[in-house]
Amino acid sequence: MKTAIIGIGLIGGSFALSLKDNGLSDEILGVDNNTENAQRALALGLVDRVVTMDEAVTEADLIVLAIPVNAIPMLAIKILNKIRKDQVVMEMGSTKQELCETISMHPNRGRFVATHPMWGTEYSGPEAAVKGAFTGRTVVIAEAEASDADALERVEAIYTRIGMPILYMGAEEHDTHTAYISHISHITSFALALTVLEKERETSHIFDLAGSGFESTVRLAKSSPQTWLPIFMQNKYNVLDVLREHIHQLQVIRKMLERDDTAGLMATMEKANSIKKILE
Amino acid sequence: MKTAIIGIGLIGGSFALSLKDNGLSDEILGVDNNTENAQRALALGLVDRVVTMDEAVTEADLIVLAIPVNAIPMLAIKILNKIRKDQVVMEMGSTKQELCETISMHPNRGRFVATHPMWGTEYSGPEAAVKGAFTGRTVVIAEAEASDADALERVEAIYTRIGMPILYMGAEEHDTHTAYISHISHITSFALALTVLEKERETSHIFDLAGSGFESTVRLAKSSPQTWLPIFMQNKYNVLDVLREHIHQLQVIRKMLERDDTAGLMATMEKANSIKKILE
Repeated sequence: MKTAIIGIGLIGGSFALSLKDNGLSDEILGVDNNTENAQRALALGLVDRVVTMDEAVTEADLIVLAIPVNAIPMLAIKILNKIRKDQVVMEMGSTKQELCETISMHPNRGRFVATHPMWGTEYSGPEAAVKGAFTGRTVVIAEAEASDADALERVEAIYTRIGMPILYMGAEEHDTHTAYISHISHITSFALALTVLEKERETSHIFDLAGSGFESTVRLAKSSPQTWLPIFMQNKYNVLDVLREHIHQLQVIRKMLERDDTAGLMATMEKANSIKKILE
Repeated sequence: MKTAIIGIGLIGGSFALSLKDNGLSDEILGVDNNTENAQRALALGLVDRVVTMDEAVTEADLIVLAIPVNAIPMLAIKILNKIRKDQVVMEMGSTKQELCETISMHPNRGRFVATHPMWGTEYSGPEAAVKGAFTGRTVVIAEAEASDADALERVEAIYTRIGMPILYMGAEEHDTHTAYISHISHITSFALALTVLEKERETSHIFDLAGSGFESTVRLAKSSPQTWLPIFMQNKYNVLDVLREHIHQLQVIRKMLERDDTAGLMATMEKANSIKKILE
């Protein structure tokens, strides 16, 4: 099988490595708007050949979109306009509603599989690609019923081979869930970084004192705005909903602290502790 | 040298291991209010002998307080009331102002050294003790000028041998800084856990979807309320100050998102990205 990866950064590059390491692709073609990125991906061995979009769409059996979510719907349409019935197109973005709605009436919709592997880091670009990144992580396939059986099976087989449990969801359900367990974490981390940068003048002390707790809550603030701004915009209503709830929770804690309500704070923290059961 | 560790949990237990591994103590005595904890610490080899508080104060050359911060000031006074001039008392808590004020006029103040090693995890109890935990981390010594030269030197020598750079601060400065780079991280993490627990009904999906980003921002929500409530209460005004700023930052982001202010969001995230320079 010949695979074309459109966008060879953190996700596309890591997926290319997973395909190679699991013997899932004979040749990997790379496409990237940024020619420097493409050349670095080639030099790093993430892709076997750098090609144009047209060449990728003509040659590849599987076309993988791993680009910012704002660019996915239009490119999906343009690729679906051109592909043959034996080709499969898949994407790996963090939002699903706008994409699934955009492509819903396309006559080749069946050739498309919308997926979201639940993995990422705060780094970006081809150098950020990681071997074995996806293994053991869950992948969501959204609106699986809209994909042709053979296209779906081909993508399922790839993810299964990589070692990823598959979860099936509607696009709306996906976007609600990811707002809670991924998008809000990024917003709190960006806001925490700003809080510290705003208030703390002696930055050398931040550096010296910052323990592992601070580092783990703030590390997502290093994430690429080019990746995350489109995600927040596309999932705006869900993100706003969670953000309002989160601000509310912080205000409740603030008021308890102002009032010396130690019993309330203790109960609040004990309740928060129950996240243990979910994480472990 | 004979050392007594008062409170053999995450911090006291890890410190006991560091003393042993660096040949810094011939015998380690353990004291714990919770006799079950004390026996587990003994079984785990963290301490050589479990003793009473009175025995510890009589026998030990160095007495180390590693208990919740609300219990430190009173116990510090009681121990300073009893010690000889060749003994040293130190503590390892996360707040300093209330403690330093409480002991400031004590005739034996000079025998006391207030320290804060910048390390911890979300776990607690003797089983949470970690070998080599402190090595490479910074330790703050607060109000060093109030300690006798020989007492200070003894504590400095221990931390240096463990491999910890020492930073000297006033108690007030310490509490302001730690509010920013430690205490607020715990509050946002507790609030994030509550947000998700409040809104998300299908907890199996949280578990399945939670990527490493969520886990790293929420892991501090597993922390012990018994440890953290006293820290928040003792550092109340600083914590409230940072919390207000953090809520403000989240509200700014929320408003930008509501208004589709993509330029503002992009600038905000790029500014937050500069935390990279401080962390790396």
